[in-house]
This record gives sequence, C-alpha cells and structure tokens, in this order.
Amino acid sequence: MDKCIITFLPDNKKVVVDRGTSLLSAALTAHIHLNSSCGGDGVCGKCRVLVKSGKVHAEPSGRIAPQDRNAGVYLACQTLAESDLTVEIFPESRLDLSALSREELALRLRGIYAPAEDIQEAKPGLTQEVFAFRPLVEKFHFELPAPDFNDKLSDLERVCRAVQEKIGDAPLHTGLANLRKLGELLRTSSWSVTVAVAAKGPVYEILAIEPGDSSQKNFGLVFDIGTTTITGQLVDLTHKKVLGTKATYNRQATFGSDIITRIIYAQAADGLEKLHHAVVDVLNEMAESFIEEHDVDLNDVTCVCVSGNTTMIHLLLRIDPSHIRQAPYVPTANYIPAIRAAEAGLKINPHGVLYCLPGVSSYVGGDITAGVLSCEIFKSKDLELLIDIGTNGEIVLGNNEWLISCAASAGPAFEGSGMACGLRAVRGAIQAVHVDPESLDVAYTTIGGDKPRGICGSGYIDLVMQLLRAGVVDKNGKLNREKAHSRLRPSSAGYEFVVVSGPQAGLDNDIVVTDADLDNFKRAKAAIYSAVSLLVRHMELKAGDIRRVFVAGGFGTSLNVESAVFIGLIPDLPRERYVFVGNSSLAGAREVLLSRDAAQACDRIAGNITYFELSTDAAYMDEYMAALFFPHTDAGRFPSVKY
Amino acid sequence: MDKCIITFLPDNKKVVVDRGTSLLSAALTAHIHLNSSCGGDGVCGKCRVLVKSGKVHAEPSGRIAPQDRNAGVYLACQTLAESDLTVEIFPESRLDLSALSREELALRLRGIYAPAEDIQEAKPGLTQEVFAFRPLVEKFHFELPAPDFNDKLSDLERVCRAVQEKIGDAPLHTGLANLRKLGELLRTSSWSVTVAVAAKGPVYEILAIEPGDSSQKNFGLVFDIGTTTITGQLVDLTHKKVLGTKATYNRQATFGSDIITRIIYAQAADGLEKLHHAVVDVLNEMAESFIEEHDVDLNDVTCVCVSGNTTMIHLLLRIDPSHIRQAPYVPTANYIPAIRAAEAGLKINPHGVLYCLPGVSSYVGGDITAGVLSCEIFKSKDLELLIDIGTNGEIVLGNNEWLISCAASAGPAFEGSGMACGLRAVRGAIQAVHVDPESLDVAYTTIGGDKPRGICGSGYIDLVMQLLRAGVVDKNGKLNREKAHSRLRPSSAGYEFVVVSGPQAGLDNDIVVTDADLDNFKRAKAAIYSAVSLLVRHMELKAGDIRRVFVAGGFGTSLNVESAVFIGLIPDLPRERYVFVGNSSLAGAREVLLSRDAAQACDRIAGNITYFELSTDAAYMDEYMAALFFPHTDAGRFPSVKY
Repeated sequence: MDKCIITFLPDNKKVVVDRGTSLLSAALTAHIHLNSSCGGDGVCGKCRVLVKSGKVHAEPSGRIAPQDRNAGVYLACQTLAESDLTVEIFPESRLDLSALSREELALRLRGIYAPAEDIQEAKPGLTQEVFAFRPLVEKFHFELPAPDFNDKLSDLERVCRAVQEKIGDAPLHTGLANLRKLGELLRTSSWSVTVAVAAKGPVYEILAIEPGDSSQKNFGLVFDIGTTTITGQLVDLTHKKVLGTKATYNRQATFGSDIITRIIYAQAADGLEKLHHAVVDVLNEMAESFIEEHDVDLNDVTCVCVSGNTTMIHLLLRIDPSHIRQAPYVPTANYIPAIRAAEAGLKINPHGVLYCLPGVSSYVGGDITAGVLSCEIFKSKDLELLIDIGTNGEIVLGNNEWLISCAASAGPAFEGSGMACGLRAVRGAIQAVHVDPESLDVAYTTIGGDKPRGICGSGYIDLVMQLLRAGVVDKNGKLNREKAHSRLRPSSAGYEFVVVSGPQAGLDNDIVVTDADLDNFKRAKAAIYSAVSLLVRHMELKAGDIRRVFVAGGFGTSLNVESAVFIGLIPDLPRERYVFVGNSSLAGAREVLLSRDAAQACDRIAGNITYFELSTDAAYMDEYMAALFFPHTDAGRFPSVKY
Repeated sequence: MDKCIITFLPDNKKVVVDRGTSLLSAALTAHIHLNSSCGGDGVCGKCRVLVKSGKVHAEPSGRIAPQDRNAGVYLACQTLAESDLTVEIFPESRLDLSALSREELALRLRGIYAPAEDIQEAKPGLTQEVFAFRPLVEKFHFELPAPDFNDKLSDLERVCRAVQEKIGDAPLHTGLANLRKLGELLRTSSWSVTVAVAAKGPVYEILAIEPGDSSQKNFGLVFDIGTTTITGQLVDLTHKKVLGTKATYNRQATFGSDIITRIIYAQAADGLEKLHHAVVDVLNEMAESFIEEHDVDLNDVTCVCVSGNTTMIHLLLRIDPSHIRQAPYVPTANYIPAIRAAEAGLKINPHGVLYCLPGVSSYVGGDITAGVLSCEIFKSKDLELLIDIGTNGEIVLGNNEWLISCAASAGPAFEGSGMACGLRAVRGAIQAVHVDPESLDVAYTTIGGDKPRGICGSGYIDLVMQLLRAGVVDKNGKLNREKAHSRLRPSSAGYEFVVVSGPQAGLDNDIVVTDADLDNFKRAKAAIYSAVSLLVRHMELKAGDIRRVFVAGGFGTSLNVESAVFIGLIPDLPRERYVFVGNSSLAGAREVLLSRDAAQACDRIAGNITYFELSTDAAYMDEYMAALFFPHTDAGRFPSVKY
C-alpha cells in the first residue's frame, strides 16, 4: 500500500502513514492529540486543521464554511491523505501539550483549565456540616521523645504510638520505603517529624514521614470525571478550604463521545491504554496547573478523590470495561479499594492515595453515589429525587429507608456537546435566554458576562422553551419554516435559527440552533423524563409524592426551572420543590476527601441503592416515545405548561 | 597510584585495582563472592586462592600449610596485589553463583544447600497442635455463579462474596493488577477460579486470582536467618507438610562474622546494599533449589515467613541497622508490617507476602519470639527458660504471666565458626565424642555417619568435657603441655590436640582443637551461663526454680546435657528438666506460616517480653568473669560435676 509522509506544523513532526489514513489518525500516530469530541464522526467540528500542501480527499462538511474550505481548512477526522502533506494544526484544535516547553505549558494549562468558580454547588435548605472534618489523609506533627534506656521503643513503634494517640488504636500499616530511612530521619530531625496518615477502610497507613513540621502542607485533589467534562478542585486539607476549581473537556472524547463508543474503542489494540492516558493526562495537567497557581509542592498533595461513572473509573484505572456493555452489564468493580495514586499514573506524592467513590452498577456510578451523599437523600424522611444530567442521565429516587436508581442514555446535548454551537458551562457560554415572542429579539446572559462564544445546557433549555412559546419551534421540535424572519434560514443541514450574529459576538460564524440540534435535544430530554417517570411508576408512586428534586449536572449555572418544566425535561411539580445542585458529584467527592465519616457513609449508600434496569423493561420505550414531544404527548402531565 | 590487573580463573574475569588491594576485595570488585566467614580477618581460612602468576604480599598464616603456601595458595583476605596477577579461585572458596549456567547452578545449589532433615526440632512433652491450621496465605477454589439480571454483583464483589464466605466478614483488599485482568479471567475460565488470600493483621488481601482449580498448589517458605547459618524449609500449605529443609552459611559472613562487624560494614558505601543482597541471594537460591527439587512453580510460592535476629531482619529489608549498636540500642522496627516479598527482593509470586516475626529489642529478635512460641513458654504455669545458642546467645525466662529476656554476645563458636576445624551441623560434622581417659583414644559419631570433616557445636561441647575429665584440658581451658601424648603437640598458634588424623579422615589436614579454640569456647560458654545466672538473680529467683529449660541453637543434633553441664554452659539442674529443641526459631516461623492464630500469638508474645539490658548492668561483668572457668569459679554451683 502507498505510504504518505505527513508533516505536522508547528511541531514539525513527521509520520509515515498508509495512503487513505485520516489526518486525525495520523496526528495520533505523531502523538498529537486533537480535540474531537464527537469521536471522529465529523459532527463536532473541533478538529479543524489547515492543509498547506499536498492532496487530500474529504467529504464536504457543514462544519467548514466555504471560504474556509477554499483556504484549505479541513476536519482532520473526515479528511484522508492522498499524498505527502504539510498540515498545520490550529491551536484550538489541539489537546496534546507534551510538545510545549515548561513556560508554554504553564500558560496553556491556565487557558485550558479555566477557573470554574462559577460551578454551582448550592445546597439550599441542607445542613451545612454533616460529617466531622477528618480528611482521608491527615498530617500530624510530633515532637517525639528521644529514646533512652527507660523508653526503648523502636523507631517505628515510637512513631506509631504517637499516631495512635491521634487516631485511636486502629491497625497502622506502612511500607518498606518509609522504614528504610526512618532511623536516620528521626535523628537528623531531632525527633521532630510530620507523619501523613491515610485512612484505608478500617486500617490506617503511614504514607510518609517528613522532617520538621510540614503539617500545614497537606493538599488533596478531587475530580469529577464526566464522559464529556472533567472538573477538579485543589483542596487545602489542613484548613478545609477549596483553593481552586477548574474544568475541561475529557480528552477521551477524541476516541468517542459516549460511553459505548469508548468501550468499543478500548477493545482495539492499545485502545484501553490510550483512553487511560487521555484521562490521566488531563488529571495530571490539571494538578500541575493547580500547584503552579497555588505554589503547592506536588509531594504535599497526598490524596486524590475521584467520582465518575463506572466506565470512566474503569478507564482511569486501565481496567477492561468491555463487560459493562455486554448483558447482564456487570462491571469489574463497583467498589475500588484505595490504591496508590501512582499505580493509576497520577503524579502526586509517590505514596499518595487514590480513592474512587463506589458505584452501584455499570450505569450508576460513584458520581451518583456522591450526589446522594451531598444531597443527603439517604437521610431524608421525605421522598426525594436526584436527577443528574450529563451524557448519561442518572436518576435516584428514595429516602432514608430505600433508594432506587436507573440510568438513561441522554447524549451530551445538555453538556453543550454534539450541538452546532454547544459549549460547556464555561465563561462566554450563553446560560440564559429570552426571546421576544413578537420581534424574536434575543436577550441573553453569558457565564462571566463575557462575549458569547456558544450555548451551554441551561442556555439551550431556555432557548428551546422561548422558541416554543414564540412559535418558532413546534411540539415536534421542528423549526417553523412558515415563520418569515431574518433569524430563520435554511442551512446545509436543514433549517437554523440565529441566536447571535457572528459580528455581534465577535466570531467568524453566527451562533445558531439547528433542526438537528433540536432533534438531539428532544431525544435527550425524553430520555431523562421517561426514566424519572418510569422509576416513580415502578415504585407505585406518583410524581407528586416527590417532596424535593435535586437537579445536578454540567448544564450550566442558572437552570430555569420554568423552562425545564416547559420543555418537559422534569416533572411539573410545585417549583419550590426543585433544588439545583450543580456538580453534586464533585461536591460528594470533596465531602469524602474531607471526612472519613463521609467515606464510610458513601460506601453504605452505594450498597443500599437498588439498580433498576431500564433496558430490559418493556414500559421504558413506551414512556420514551411518549416523551418525544414538547412538553409531552400526554399534556395532562404538564398542567402548568400552556402555549 | 599504581594499578594492577587481576585475572580471576576459572571465570577469566579481569579487574583493575590499586596496587596493595587485597585479593578478597579485588574478587568482590569482580563480583566474585568468596567464603570469608571471619570477615577478612585471616582467621577462618575459608578464602583460599591459588596465585598462578604475579607478585603478592602476604603475612604468614597458620591457615595455610607450608607445602600449600609453597604451591602458591594464599588467603585472599590477607594477600595484597603487588603486580598484575592471575588468581585461581578454589570451588570451595567461592560463594558467588551468578556466573554459572542454569544447569551448573542447579548442581551447585544442591551441593551448597544440602538437605538438612537432621535439624532437630523435637518438642517432647509439648502438645502436638496448639494453633488451628490456617496458613497466612490460603487458596480457595470457587465455581462462581455467573452473573445474570437477578445477580448483577460486579466481578470483584462476586469474588469477595465467595471469599468472605470462607474467611468471614473481615475487610478484603486487592491491588489494581488483579482488577485489570479480572473481567476477562472470570469469563475465559467459565467462572471457575482459585483465589489466594493473605491475612495481614485484621485485613485480608487477595493476592492473586487464577483460572481453574489451583488450590492444591500453595506453598510457603520459612527461613531462620542466623548471623552464621541460614536454614530454610519449603512447606506445602495445602497439605500442611514440610517438603524439604536446607541449611547454609549466611553469605554476609564475607563482610564480617558477627552482628557488630556487619552493622559497621553497612555504614560503608554500598555496604548495606551488599549485605542485603548477600542474604537475599541466599534466600532466592535456596528457594530456587527447593522448587527445582520438588517441581514447584515459583508463582505457587505465595508466602515467606522469616525469623531472625533484629539486625538480620534489618539487613534483609535493607533498613539501616546503625542505631542498633548505638546507645540506647533502638532498632528501626521490632514489628515489621507484612509486605510484598518482592519489595525485599525475594523472588516468589510477585504478589506474595513476606512476614517477619516480631522482635523484642535490638538484641532479642523475632527468632527468640519464635522460640517462645514454639516452646510454648507463654502458656506455662511453671517457670521455664529458653536458651538460644547462636552467634549471640539469647535467654528468655518466664511463664504464662511474665517473660523477661536478655542477650549475650557468645561469638560463633557453638555454630562451628571461628574454630580451627569448626563446621556447622551438617553431614560429616563430628557431633558426639568420647575420649578414653587413659589412652586418649577418641571415639566419635558424625552427622549422617559420613567421614568426619570437622567438629560442630555439640561435638565441641562433648570434646571439651571429655578432655577436661581426661586432664588434657585444665579448668582454665589450657591444653596440658605436661601430658606427653602423640595427640598433643605444639602448633604455629600454641598447642593443639589431634581429634582425628588427616589420613584417617581422608583429609589433607588433621582435625584438631587448639588453645585458641578452647579460649574462644570458654568465653562463649561464659557469656551464656552468666546471662542465665544474672537473669534468674534479677528476678530474685534461684536456678532450681526453673522447671524446664529449652535449649535451642545450631550447635548440632545430639547435645549431651551431661557435657553441657560439666563444662558449665548450662545450670546444674536435674537432667530431666532439659529439653533440646534444636532450631526453635525455624519451628516458630513455620507455626506462624501455618496458622494466623500463631501469628497473632507471636505478636502478643513479642509485646509481652521485657528486655533486660546486660550491657548496662554492673553485675554482668562479675558474673561473666566468674564463669571463665570449667565449669565455674564457684564450684558449689555445679555440685554434680566432679573431676
């Protein structure tokens, strides 16, 4: 087979590939990761490159404007090499940072892992502190008594005696590395040492023994690993303080946008390796970025607490996830024992610990357990509901006596992915929209008040509701072609509505919502609503019995409950029953990081949640089909919605 | 400085060293380990080499017969290079096996690690089974139920559920390596798997999960690491059976014969590394030899249980031992947490566990705890005494209410080291001696009935007693120069008594006992006796209060209690109170390997033994000086001894 030499700029990396290889694949061969959140389907338009010389074959793409196409811009995933090529990668298309110098890296990381203080985690009406503050890893400073002939305890037992005065008589383990240098360390530090102790279930482990008093330097990381978005925080474990929050795309999106695509990819040669490294790299880079900004020593980061869906946790740990998608959908593990973070490739203190929050099943993971923990449903006398809207939608219904859960495949629409102008909930994302029913003038607010760059989940929910009410979109989710207005126009992919014009936004392209977007969106909301509906029915309850609904997810910071009910995403309950808890997964992981009591509660919760399998329930498809309208085929379910 | 090129044969290894470097040191530089149990002091005579060409400088040595010296035989440790040299290493001088081919290695290992079934471990009068048979690592075979929609437990939880039906509800941990392959493993093995589970204190760990039923293939190793001798056993953990026993010298002897010398050596550059590897190599080679002989797969060896004095354990684990010899003599650890054997460099199953029996202090180690365990002193209502005679002599006095211990530096005489014709208790060692008081004819028995090669500890005890009674040796331990007999003759190092003539033994040299030997021996026995005496006095008891004395140690298989009392090694008690338990350290380690109850008991014993420091006790030197006679300065202490 013919070979082509592809030269990637600005790295000037050359690779030899078979003729007909996609540029996305060639870039990967050159160890250049491109942003490709649709998994190479040509949908997301994120992997734009400039072909500077040579011949390629590419199908036309609606993602590339004609003038760009003429200038040589292509989607790497849809473009095949036909000859030797010189290809320039746009900075925004690039995920891979390994080629950068340290200074450049620091700068880039700041850009990619933008601060995300705006991640909402309100728990209105909930008690402020449920669990005692006792981080999973604690550092204690001791001025140990030096041994003498009346106190001849060995060095290790001397340290253990001091630690056990703090933690009680629990068994205390430690590794050989700490022992090997202990005698010298204690004596050169004049018996003044700091001991880092990790709780591992009923056992404690001495992670590190350091000279002097470093007890004020103890930090932890929490990550919520979503299929589309990864959010992280750096937490000061001594002072119980969140130092920073960042979010970014999950780089695994290069290999597929949803869980199933990634599980399939994991079965290819090196697939699991690549998916593993994709997420570990993000975590390590985010950690790097945090410690640079906050002047923290990596060795003082002693603990990482991760919540995520079951597949994400498997991939993080490089555990084969293939059985998750094979009936009866059994994962390798729901409970992951506490392990060394280094075992998973995480670069913190070499003895630092990685805790993964326990999951319930293949499709209800530790992120949901975390949500139940942080929303305190497990303590409630009243019936409560948690809806976590991500690429999958997970639902938990219950109270302090029972908990039942299910998972619905919603797709990434609510995370701003797979939509023409979708954006995750970052600065510049349109988060709230008002459309004047007469003039169709659009008013909006963006996260951070920046110029609009796209639309996040909450923005879409508002937008669809407003367009429904204005008659621009019909109950089937189609743009009304009869409505003559300059904002409505045909496009290569059907019809589209211009939300913000390019010039107004300072962008090359207009910010639009398309027929395809609306179809995506409708199916996403139907998946969520029908799952809630079925779960309630299964328990022989009525939606009205639910006293409180926690809505979690990465859709944005200011979800409008009226809009969400109006489009039929959530049940038509009295509005005061709704609580928007934002990233409850991250909040739960942080509670675990900060309290071993919370960690124990989390284990109990995971054990107590019953999993309800939607895929084998005949009624689910009926419910889903009935929900493929705005708000619903059965208007009686949404009495408050009128338009 | 001038350089010399030394070529070692038969390896044909060349090294460049400074002129004036000893051949022992040059050999080490060439990674050739020589047998040098005196630590290079020119005393043991074990490092003989043949200088074939070149010029050396060497002080005359009594260890080299004049005709050998003329032929070019030297002690490597006492011989300095003066020019380029060609040096041939005698096979018996060599410790290092790394240059050998696999076949040669197997052959050599069989020679070096001779079977030692003759190691005595009798426990007359003791109950046969004290602890329930539950090995520290167990293998369970399960035919797991395959998951279905009614039993959707994750793979790991499915395994854990089965294991916990066997071990109870104890916390169960496992590492990432086992998780990574678990899903595939369970399914390709049709859910028929064998799980290796290790007890680690109150927690259990899944070490390995294997396809099919390998539950019958579970083996453990026990080692007693003595300063001079290392003894090991391969144990079938399924069938509770010792498959083989082997013993050899501790190769660390190359770097010094006693604990203090080795601790000093450990402080030199690479010293700790070398001592560590010296012992680890012996353990690995002995393991290799065992598994070859018994056709065992190394991966089926799941557990190693080691007892040894505190310094030996530190060196095994490469923990700096330097503080053991600095007041107040505090080791880094008496309790070593269970670790992976691989962490210490031991080559068994990569997830296999290493347990080190807990010690009491720097000079009363896990070997003594093991002895108290196997002799069951901790259960006795009567006052009992354990004397473990090795390079150090350790004493434990007590009963089921209290236990007190001390350590006396005896030197290696009782292990057959540092004596002109000393031999450890192996085949061909003279173990019992009768000397006709008139004719001075010597009758003897050897271990295994082989031709005599030297004298082991029990042989020396008999010999000295017999020579005392025959008037050949006086109460001061001097050979009687007035006694005219062909067996008595002057030698380069004073006077000597010929036990067996060379021709009779089939050796080049006669087997003799010298004035220097007797002096060594007297000081060794005085160190032991005075320690026992002082400990009894310290507790305000009398020797006669001791109802049972357990005598342990590597001195041989048939210690004659009459002889031992006669020479003043042990108190003059009714003979039926003495029990010779041989290697009680190895026996204790094996009990721990075979029973987690024993492991727990061992921890408690170590915690309950009080350590009595002889070195800071003024009365000890008085006791010691008074014991430097045969049997003792105070003859009233030995009323039954008359000569």
